[in-house]
Parts: sequence; C-alpha cells; structure tokens
Amino acid sequence: MALVKNTLGRLAPTEVNGKPAVPFQGVGKFRPTGRKACPPIPTCLDYPEDGNKVVPDLRSALKKAGVRNGMTISTHHHFRDGDTLPLQLFNLCAEMGLKDLVWYPSAAFPCHAPIAKHLDSGVIHHIEGSLNGPLGDYCTHGKMRGLGVLRSHGGRAQAIQDGEVHIDISVIAAPTADQFGNANAVHGQSACGVLGYADADLTYADRTIVVTDNLVPFPAIPIQLSGTHVDMVVGQDSIGDPKKIVSGTTQITRSPDRLYIAELTARFIRDSGIMHDGFSFQAGAGGISLAFALYLADMMKQAGVKASWLHGGSTRYLVKMLEDGIAPVLIDGQAFDLDAVRSIGVNRGHIDTSPLVSYNFHAKGNYINLLDAAVLGATEVDANFNANVVTHSDGRLRHGIGGWQNCMQARCTILAIPAMRDRMPVVVDEVTTLCAPGELVDVIVTELGLAINPLRQDLLDAVKGKGLPVRSIQDIKAEVERTCGKPSRPKHGDKVVAVVKWIDGTVLDSVYQLG
Amino acid sequence: MALVKNTLGRLAPTEVNGKPAVPFQGVGKFRPTGRKACPPIPTCLDYPEDGNKVVPDLRSALKKAGVRNGMTISTHHHFRDGDTLPLQLFNLCAEMGLKDLVWYPSAAFPCHAPIAKHLDSGVIHHIEGSLNGPLGDYCTHGKMRGLGVLRSHGGRAQAIQDGEVHIDISVIAAPTADQFGNANAVHGQSACGVLGYADADLTYADRTIVVTDNLVPFPAIPIQLSGTHVDMVVGQDSIGDPKKIVSGTTQITRSPDRLYIAELTARFIRDSGIMHDGFSFQAGAGGISLAFALYLADMMKQAGVKASWLHGGSTRYLVKMLEDGIAPVLIDGQAFDLDAVRSIGVNRGHIDTSPLVSYNFHAKGNYINLLDAAVLGATEVDANFNANVVTHSDGRLRHGIGGWQNCMQARCTILAIPAMRDRMPVVVDEVTTLCAPGELVDVIVTELGLAINPLRQDLLDAVKGKGLPVRSIQDIKAEVERTCGKPSRPKHGDKVVAVVKWIDGTVLDSVYQLG
Repeated sequence: MALVKNTLGRLAPTEVNGKPAVPFQGVGKFRPTGRKACPPIPTCLDYPEDGNKVVPDLRSALKKAGVRNGMTISTHHHFRDGDTLPLQLFNLCAEMGLKDLVWYPSAAFPCHAPIAKHLDSGVIHHIEGSLNGPLGDYCTHGKMRGLGVLRSHGGRAQAIQDGEVHIDISVIAAPTADQFGNANAVHGQSACGVLGYADADLTYADRTIVVTDNLVPFPAIPIQLSGTHVDMVVGQDSIGDPKKIVSGTTQITRSPDRLYIAELTARFIRDSGIMHDGFSFQAGAGGISLAFALYLADMMKQAGVKASWLHGGSTRYLVKMLEDGIAPVLIDGQAFDLDAVRSIGVNRGHIDTSPLVSYNFHAKGNYINLLDAAVLGATEVDANFNANVVTHSDGRLRHGIGGWQNCMQARCTILAIPAMRDRMPVVVDEVTTLCAPGELVDVIVTELGLAINPLRQDLLDAVKGKGLPVRSIQDIKAEVERTCGKPSRPKHGDKVVAVVKWIDGTVLDSVYQLG
Repeated sequence: MALVKNTLGRLAPTEVNGKPAVPFQGVGKFRPTGRKACPPIPTCLDYPEDGNKVVPDLRSALKKAGVRNGMTISTHHHFRDGDTLPLQLFNLCAEMGLKDLVWYPSAAFPCHAPIAKHLDSGVIHHIEGSLNGPLGDYCTHGKMRGLGVLRSHGGRAQAIQDGEVHIDISVIAAPTADQFGNANAVHGQSACGVLGYADADLTYADRTIVVTDNLVPFPAIPIQLSGTHVDMVVGQDSIGDPKKIVSGTTQITRSPDRLYIAELTARFIRDSGIMHDGFSFQAGAGGISLAFALYLADMMKQAGVKASWLHGGSTRYLVKMLEDGIAPVLIDGQAFDLDAVRSIGVNRGHIDTSPLVSYNFHAKGNYINLLDAAVLGATEVDANFNANVVTHSDGRLRHGIGGWQNCMQARCTILAIPAMRDRMPVVVDEVTTLCAPGELVDVIVTELGLAINPLRQDLLDAVKGKGLPVRSIQDIKAEVERTCGKPSRPKHGDKVVAVVKWIDGTVLDSVYQLG
C-alpha cells in the first residue's frame, strides 16, 4: 500500500479498498468534480399495480433485490444499541451462502459485536463506517480484510451522493411504514423520532427494502422517508430492542469537574456575545453537553435572550427549550430520549433533518454553515488545536466520528473536554489520530480553564475582562503534564487498518494495526 | 419532419426539438433505460460561509447563475393566474439581450399571454409545456419556432428526472423563504399552500433561484422545498397577484345537467362498491368535480363509510371531509382556494406532495397506483373511450394536461362530462387530439347516462340491478348526434406544431397547424 504525507504531515494511502483516494489537501482546498450519482430509471411496470410492495420476509426481499456476492448493503443506526436488524440481515446472508459483502452502516454499536463472526467467515469483506468496541478491536488488530473507512455523518451521505460509495441494497428499519414504503419514526413500538440517516441511502441505492414492526394502511404520516424510492416492504414482529433504541431519559453528568466544564462553556457563549437574540447552537447527548444546555437555558432566561433555532441530536433539555419558547425551532437528526421522540410527534417547531442536508459539505451550503456554536467532545487535542475523536492514546478505535467533523463548520466550534481522563492526558503533544485540523477548533474548555485558538483574535477580544479563566493551550497542557506526565504513544507498526476521511472526502489520517 | 404512425394510429414525429422521440408503443410497453439525471457535485466552498444566499435582485441572480443564450429556464405554476414572475423573468432576459431560451413552465395561464412578445422577438425559442389561451393560439397557428411539448404533471417531472429535459436554471416563486433557500407556501401574502410542482426542478436543475416576497429568518418552516438545492435567494416586494393565486372560494356548478352528472358519478362510486371503508379518490376543482365531492361526502356519511385518503388538488370540500373526519388524510399537490391554504397550515393530516412522487410513471410505483377512483373532465371522448383534454373540435390548444393523464393509472378512472357543450358533441367518432388510450378510461358519466368500458366487466357486473342509467357509449353517441349532428373536423394541414407525450415519455399524438 502506497502511503503519502498529506498537508498536515499525516500518512494517507492513495488507494482505499481498491479505489483511488485523495490525501487531505488543506482546509477548503479540495474541489470535487463530476456529477452526482444517478440510480437506474425505474418504471411502474416493474412494481405492483396496486402499490402494495409487501413481500413475505426479509429473505424473499433480498432475493428479489438480486443480492449477490460482493454487494454493498447499508443500514442506518437510529436504533442505536437496540439495532438488531443488521445481525438478522447478515445471518440471513450467511444462510444464503453469500460472500464478500460490504456493510455500510451509518454507525456501529456494541450490539453489533456478533457481526464479527461474519467477517471471520467471509460473508462480510469489510465494514465501511464507524467502528468501536469489539468491532473496533477487530479492525485495529488487523483482522478485517478491507480497510475501515471512518467518515462523519455528512461525509457518509456525501460519499453516497458523489458516487464514491455505491449502495446496491439499502435495508431500512422503520418504526412505522405503509405498503408503499412511506416510513416514519414517530409512531410504533420502535419509535425513534427521526430517520434522516437513511435519507442518502434511500435516494441513491439501487434497491431499498423497508423493514417494519408496524405496518399501517397507506399513507404512513408524517412521511419522513418517501416510498417513491422503496422497492419492497417487509413486516415482521420485531426490528429492534425498543428498550435500547432511546434512553428513557438522558443523564446529566454528576462529576463536579464536568459540571464546571459545562458551566464554563455556557459562560463563554454568553460572555463572548455568541448568546444573542436569534443565535443558534448544537449540543449533543453526552453528560457535559446536557449540563451545558441546562446552564445555557438558564442564562438565556435570565438575559431574556431567545435562540432562533437549535440543531440536535435532540434531548429532553433541548425539547424543554423549544416548549418553553426560548427557541422556536429544533432541527433534529437523531432523537436520544423518549421526550425527544414524543416532541417530534406533537411540536410543529420540532422538525427532522438528514446529514445529506444538515451536514453535507458537497452541497450548496448546509445547516452547519449557519450555526453560531457547536459544543463537542473529543478524545484528544494537541497544542495546535488538532483534535481526535476516534481513538484514545492506546490507538484502539473506540468511537465513531458522527457529526463531530461536520460541526467544525460552525462559526464557533468548542471542545468541552476534561484536560485528563483517569490520569491520562487529553491535551497532548500530538493526537494519536487526527480527525479535525486545529485551525477549525476555536475553543477548548476544560476543568483547568479555557483556551481560545490564537487564530480567533475576535473571540479573544470578546471575552477580555469578562472574568473567564482564559489560558493558552500550552499552559493547560503543561499543567496536565505536571499531573499525569506525558502519555505513552501506542505501539503500532506501519500497517494501515483504517483511514479517517475529512468532510470533503480526502484522507486526513490513517489508523494502524496494533501488535 | 419524419412522422410515423404509432400503435394507436396517430402520427408522431421521430424527433422533437432536436432530440429523438419514441412513438407511443402501447399501454405498458415502453421501458426506459439508463440512469436518472445527475446534477454537478457542488461544494460548500462556492457558497457563502454564513449560509446567506440572498442576492440583491433577480437580474444579479440570473447573471450569477451564468444565464446565456439557449438555456432552459423553468418556473412552476402554483400561483396560477396570479403568476407574474415568468413575465418579469423574461422581460429581464430581454433586457439582458438573451436569445433562444426555452421556457419550461409546469403550466401556463392567461396571465402569461404577454410572453408571446418574447417568442416574437426571439428571446424565447419555444415553450415546452401546456399551452392555452393566446399562447395556445400562437402555437396552433404555427408561430412558435420549436414544437410545443405537452406533458402531464407527472410526465414533466419524469422528463426532468430522466434527463430528457435538462433545466439550466430553475426560478421558484416562494411565498415564504429564508436566506438559505428553504421555502414554503403556507405563510406570506402569496401563500398558495404547496410547492410540489417545483420539486423536480429543484432536485435536478443545475442552478436554482428562489424568489420570495416574504423573506424570513432561517429556518422557514415547514420546509416544503429544501434550500440544500438552492443557489440564490431574491427578496422582492411582489412575486404574484395574491388575489388571483387562489380563489377566495371555489364555485360549484349551478347547471342542472352538470349537477346531475356529479350526482350520478357519486352514485356510481357508491353503487359499484368502490365507496367502501378505506377507499380513496381524487377529484379536482372543476364545477362538476366539486359537486361530486359534496354528493359523495353525503353518501359516505349516510352509509357510515370513511375513506383512508384523498388526493388533491385540494378545495374547501375536500378540506371539509378531512375536518369532518370522514377522511383522515388529504395528500395535496395544489391548493385551489383559501380554505385549502389555511388547512395545510393547521391540519397534520393535510400533507403536501409533488408530481415526482404522486404521479411519476418512471418511479417505483406512485400514489395514483393506489387510488381507487379518479374523477376527471375531458374535451372529447370517442366510442372506444379514447379521450382528449387539450383541444376542442376546432383543433386549438385550449387546456393543459395537468394530472389528467396520470390519473389514468387509478383503479377506476371516470370522465364526468357533458355529452355535448353548446350543441357541440363531446362524445365523438374520433377525438381531435388523443391524450389517453381508451383502454384506461373505465367509465364516462354524462347527462344522458353513464357508459362503462366493456373491458371492465367487473364494473358492469357490480352495478347490475342498481338502477343506474347504464348505456353503451355508442348509444350515447348516437343520441348526441341526433341532437347536434356530427362535429366538423378542424381544417389543418400536415405541419405539426406540438406533440402530446404519454406518461411514459413516448409521443401519443401530434397537434397540427391551423390555417
């Protein structure tokens, strides 16, 4: 495998899974050429005259879809750790004697660990997508035949749109669907709120199978996914574990350090002037993010400031801001708890989105362009603000990229992170895996104070004299090292087992096989 | 121009406006090949970093979109006879010295008559789309340089999707839009309810300009058209004449004959068993259709029958069925009156659709496949049930095809028409222009009784003994001829001025130049 150094000094293979790959060329440097992917023109002649696309079971659907060796099959992860469908799917593929498939999930969860046996047996050639837990270990230990390809949610959708990844068969788990294939995630025992991660798959796949445990008469409204792109519909008793699909409630951190980080992040947003009438922000479902949203909501109420919109992952805390009227719109790509699922069914201001729209860098702009602030986590950040979100310092694949890279497009990207975890430094000399160029990280907020990227003199000026504990990142790193020492670098060879793609589709970094 | 006879004996040119054309091959015989159209891959690098796509005016937008001679520019017709934007657009193009443009509207209205001067001067080469009134006369008298191409709403969207018509610039009049280009027709002084006719344009055009008279902060919800495909946004004082965009109220026919036709149509649907719990139907905004909907609603209430969905063009009568709970869902491609506009803003069961989804024959099925009954008008029908909707017996282009051809896919297609108009026969020996093959027309309902297509023995059986005035179509025709005589055929030469496309994109018939 030929490796070249990209503009950030990271080694990138020039070919990934048999296709040419472009090394990262710098922020805003790579320009795509060509035209979007174009699925075959279908005709009503090939579909049931009565519009009823229901087939007896998933096996018949796969057969009718013409499944064969080497095909790429996609699934979405809205069911999170309750997502039982991929295992059912690949068990069936194994029974059908299929080999060398590519699985293209929008994310993998611990419940997907048994998929490893299908990698072992050759049913699946490789997984293109986020890898963590046992599958992450499987890949990092060099056991997967193809390379892991880690993309952001936006990058995944864009790779489909651009024709970089051709999906032969998309299999969509839908909490509610009708016989035509219209689907939503608002109703049914498996209701997960939204289905946007399947949007690109649905639009561009050659064949799409919708699998539901709640088959309702046409039309299944609200229509979150349009049956116009659906080939077949399968009804079965269960498509996931409802108890694990969403949390009953999402849990705020109880750690005093992390509560402090959350509060400091909110204070930064307030005192820098980002918190102004009509501003917008995104915050996720991690413990710090949840606490941040609560603190910020309080500050907004005190100051009489209203946001114009929020971008989710939605949680009960964002829903409360919507229902309290301090933000009129919540744009939602992923519901994390039951309150969020309830809300999207009843609040007109709570609308669904998809990464093809919200996050896609190969689009005519996207929602993140308009976002005033994004609050994110990270596993590591270096003194140049370069950041990592997929590995820890041991070099193992632990987390998906999610929307994290995409949020780097926000006007102010804030990493709200502990400076150390279990006495392991988070602020380091060099990140183990590079997932975001430092020039796009504007602020890090830690229990040791906050550091503003020197490129953002405007932010440095804005918070001057506001009493915030602003320090240089070097200063924070030095304190971390005084406490923990420098972290050891992972022992790995030169064999690349996975690549990290940037939001423009170029290769930002490689992940190496561990001994 | 080479003309060949298609399978229904009609002459069809083998080339239309410089592109090869396929003559009609029979219902369900033509299979498309190839892949869907694919617009260029854009990148956020070419769009404003802050997501604000607003430009000063339409002229700057056209310039920035790279408008040049020979381009195809599309507009949509949701503003109906209040659609002032196309004239503004082509006046600008004339000022900019442009020539040989193709206008691709989703329909033309009397207000578009002044466009003729731009055909005269060469700014517009030809119009591809429905033609009526002065523009219809312009074309039928052979004054347009290119051929008129008459397509159904579904056929128009499909021609874009299939790449048969490449739209260089799509200009979308939006009653409400935000700076990113998200748009809806629910709010604003020009609110017209839905915007689905612009859906295919938006998805496939190289460049899209949204023009609005109600520019609101991001996000403009509900998002009926996604800004993800929009290049530029223009705000201006007026984009249409609100008084003419929708009727205050739609008017039911007062003619006793037509009321009888409407009632008889409803009785047929009831007595044939089509009216059963969970059935579905579409009815338009014509005087007979409106009365039909009222009669049917009464019959449904009396019988305690509920529909599962209605397909609109929506009117206050369909809205009343929705709000009275006798139909839970109204799927709407076009709002005809103020009640319909109001309803889509407040009723969760009132949802918007687009011809790309509802009507597209080159899709994985469409909504009309699922429709139990469609009630339509027609200008002429012959003894083999072949029907015409674009010309009268004088051969002049008078009406657009609209969704009429698409509705031929419904399980029961009913033409509810007077057997004669002003002593001109409607039931004739041979239709002036063939717009739908007779095998797809199931029933005609006239003031002289109703005729069921002999191909539908099931319907003939179903109404036996129900007391309906069922006659043969020949019988009705004979009575018409006893009253009016046979109509004179239009005097025309061999010069083709327009073609009628079938829903699969093949050429069903030609329209000839009048002396």
